[in-house]
Amino acid sequence: MKTIPLLEPLSDELEKVERRLLEPVHADYPQLTAVLQNLLGSGGKRLRPALALLAGSLYPADRDKLVSLAASVEMLHTATLVHDDLIDGALMRRGSTTVNARWSMGATVLTGDYLFARAAALAAETNHVRVMAIFANTLMIICSGELRQIFDRHNVPRLDDQDAWQVALERYDERIDAKTASLFSAATEAAAVLGDAPEGEVVALREYGRLLGMGFQIIDDVLDFEGNQSVLGKPVGSDLREGIVTLPVLYFLLDHPNDDRVATVVQNGGDDEMVLQVVEAIRASGAVSRALDRARDLIVRSQEHLSALPDVAPRATMHALADYAISRQR
Amino acid sequence: MKTIPLLEPLSDELEKVERRLLEPVHADYPQLTAVLQNLLGSGGKRLRPALALLAGSLYPADRDKLVSLAASVEMLHTATLVHDDLIDGALMRRGSTTVNARWSMGATVLTGDYLFARAAALAAETNHVRVMAIFANTLMIICSGELRQIFDRHNVPRLDDQDAWQVALERYDERIDAKTASLFSAATEAAAVLGDAPEGEVVALREYGRLLGMGFQIIDDVLDFEGNQSVLGKPVGSDLREGIVTLPVLYFLLDHPNDDRVATVVQNGGDDEMVLQVVEAIRASGAVSRALDRARDLIVRSQEHLSALPDVAPRATMHALADYAISRQR
Repeated sequence: MKTIPLLEPLSDELEKVERRLLEPVHADYPQLTAVLQNLLGSGGKRLRPALALLAGSLYPADRDKLVSLAASVEMLHTATLVHDDLIDGALMRRGSTTVNARWSMGATVLTGDYLFARAAALAAETNHVRVMAIFANTLMIICSGELRQIFDRHNVPRLDDQDAWQVALERYDERIDAKTASLFSAATEAAAVLGDAPEGEVVALREYGRLLGMGFQIIDDVLDFEGNQSVLGKPVGSDLREGIVTLPVLYFLLDHPNDDRVATVVQNGGDDEMVLQVVEAIRASGAVSRALDRARDLIVRSQEHLSALPDVAPRATMHALADYAISRQR
Repeated sequence: MKTIPLLEPLSDELEKVERRLLEPVHADYPQLTAVLQNLLGSGGKRLRPALALLAGSLYPADRDKLVSLAASVEMLHTATLVHDDLIDGALMRRGSTTVNARWSMGATVLTGDYLFARAAALAAETNHVRVMAIFANTLMIICSGELRQIFDRHNVPRLDDQDAWQVALERYDERIDAKTASLFSAATEAAAVLGDAPEGEVVALREYGRLLGMGFQIIDDVLDFEGNQSVLGKPVGSDLREGIVTLPVLYFLLDHPNDDRVATVVQNGGDDEMVLQVVEAIRASGAVSRALDRARDLIVRSQEHLSALPDVAPRATMHALADYAISRQR
C-alpha cells in the first residue's frame, strides 16, 4: 500500500483497513471477487480512512470499530467512483482499467450498488446508530450533489452584479461540499462520535473535515488547469470539456465578463484547440492564484478548528495533513 | 393509493408510509422532487411495507419507527427498480415512463443511488442497530444476486443427471431468494426485531417472508408465460428473450432435453416467432403447472411458520396474503 510519508505512523491501522476492505463476503463469487480486488487493492492515498483513524485516535474509541468506520468511508468513496467513471465514460483510474471499461453498463451499475451495500454493512459493524445515520445522510448528500452537478452542466452563470457573484459562489461551494467535503467531514465526525467525544469537539472535527475537504476539492479543480496530463490521468481542462464551471472559471468570468470563449466551451464542449485556448487564458489570468488563495484560506480555517481538540500527536498529523492537501501534486 | 382489499385494515398506516416516502428532504430540488413524486406516488401494491406493518403489529413496536421501517423497505425496492429498468432498457413501469426513459443514464444511476441513500436514512430513523444491519445485508444480497443473474445470462444448464438438476434448481432458488425473497424476509424480520419479538418468532417471521417471497417470484416467473401483455406491461416470454432461465423453463428442459429451440432463444435471443413457439411449447407442457405446484408448496410452508406467532388478527391477514400471492393476476 502506498500512502504519503506523513501517514506512516498509521500504517499498521491502515493495513487493517485494507484487509477489512478486501475481506471476502459470502455473497462474493469469482468474477466479482476479481474485480473488487482490483478496485479496492489498487490504492489511492487512503486520505479518508486516515482522517477517520486520526480523529478517532484522539479518544479511547474501540479500535476495531474505528477500522470498520474507516473501511466504510473508503468503500463508500470507491462506490461513488465506480458510478462516476461509468457516467463520465472514464476508462482508466489509478492506473487500472475502470469497471465500465471491462463490463457492461448493467454490471457496472450493480457493482457500484454492491459496494454501497458493503459500505453500509461496514458502517453497521460500528454498532452505533448515530454513526450509521451520518453514513446514510452523507450518501444522500453526495448523490444529490452529483445529480445537481448533472443538471447544472453547461450552465454559464451570469456574474452581472455582486448578488449574482454571491449566488454563483454559493452554488459552487454547495457542490464541492456535497461532492467531496461531506465525506471528509463524515469521516472525522463519525470517528469523534464513535469515540464519545464531547459535542463541541464533534463539531470541531466535523468542521475541520468539511473545510479541509472543500480546500482539497478546490485544489483538484485548480489542478485541472495547472496539472499535467500524466499525473492527473486525464486531459487538462476536462471539467470545462464536460461543461462544469469550477472556481478558477468563476474568477476568470468575474474579470472577463465579455470573453465568449468560456461560454462556448461550457455550453457546447468546443473543439480541442478552443479548450486549450481557454485553459491558457485562465492560467495566464489571476484566476488560478485567486482560487489557490481561497483554498489556502479554507485550509487555515480547517486548522483553526483543531485547537479545540486534545493536544496529542494525531492532532499535529491532522494539521500537517491539511498543509499537505494544499501542496500536493504541484 | 391502491392496494388490495385484504390490506384495507392497514390503510391508515399505509397512508403514513406514503407520506413518509414523499416527505421532502433538504437535499431535494425541483427536478428531483418531480421525478421522485412520480416514482414514489405511482403506487404499486405496497406488499413489502404491508408485510413490515403486519409483522410489527404482532408486538408492541413503536408505530412511528415501524412506519419508517416500512417506508425504508419500499424505498429500497423502488431504488432497485430504477436501476433494473435502466439496465433492462425498460421504458414503462406502473403505467408511467421510467426515469431512464426521460433522463440520461448518468442521472438515472444517481437517482437510484439517491433512493438507496434515502432508504438507508429511513432505516436509520428506527434508531435500531440490528434493523440497520439487516437493511445493509439485504441490499448486499440483492445487488449480488442481480450481478450473478447478469453473469448467468444466456447459460442453458445441462440437466444430464439428478445432480445436475439439483445444482440448477439450487442456483434458481438462490437467485429468486436474493432478488425477491430477501427483501420480503428483511421486512418481516426487521419488524419483529423492532418489536422485540422472542428470537424464535423473529426466525419464524423471517422464514415466512422468505418462503412467501420465493413463492411470489415463482408466480412472477410463471406469469411471464401465462400472463397477457396488457396486464404485465411487457411482452410474454420477456425473461427468455433476455436469456434468463426460470423455473418453468427448467422443468421443460428436464422433460425435453433434446429440444434445441430453448437453447437457441436463451443463448441468442432468437426471433419473435421462435420465442412465441418456445413459450407455446412450455405452456403446452406440464412445466408451468409443476412450477405452480412448487410455488404453492412454498406458500403453504410459509404459512406453517405463522403458527409459531401470537394468534391475533394481523397473523390471519398474513396467512391470507400468502394465499393472495398465489392467486394474483391469473
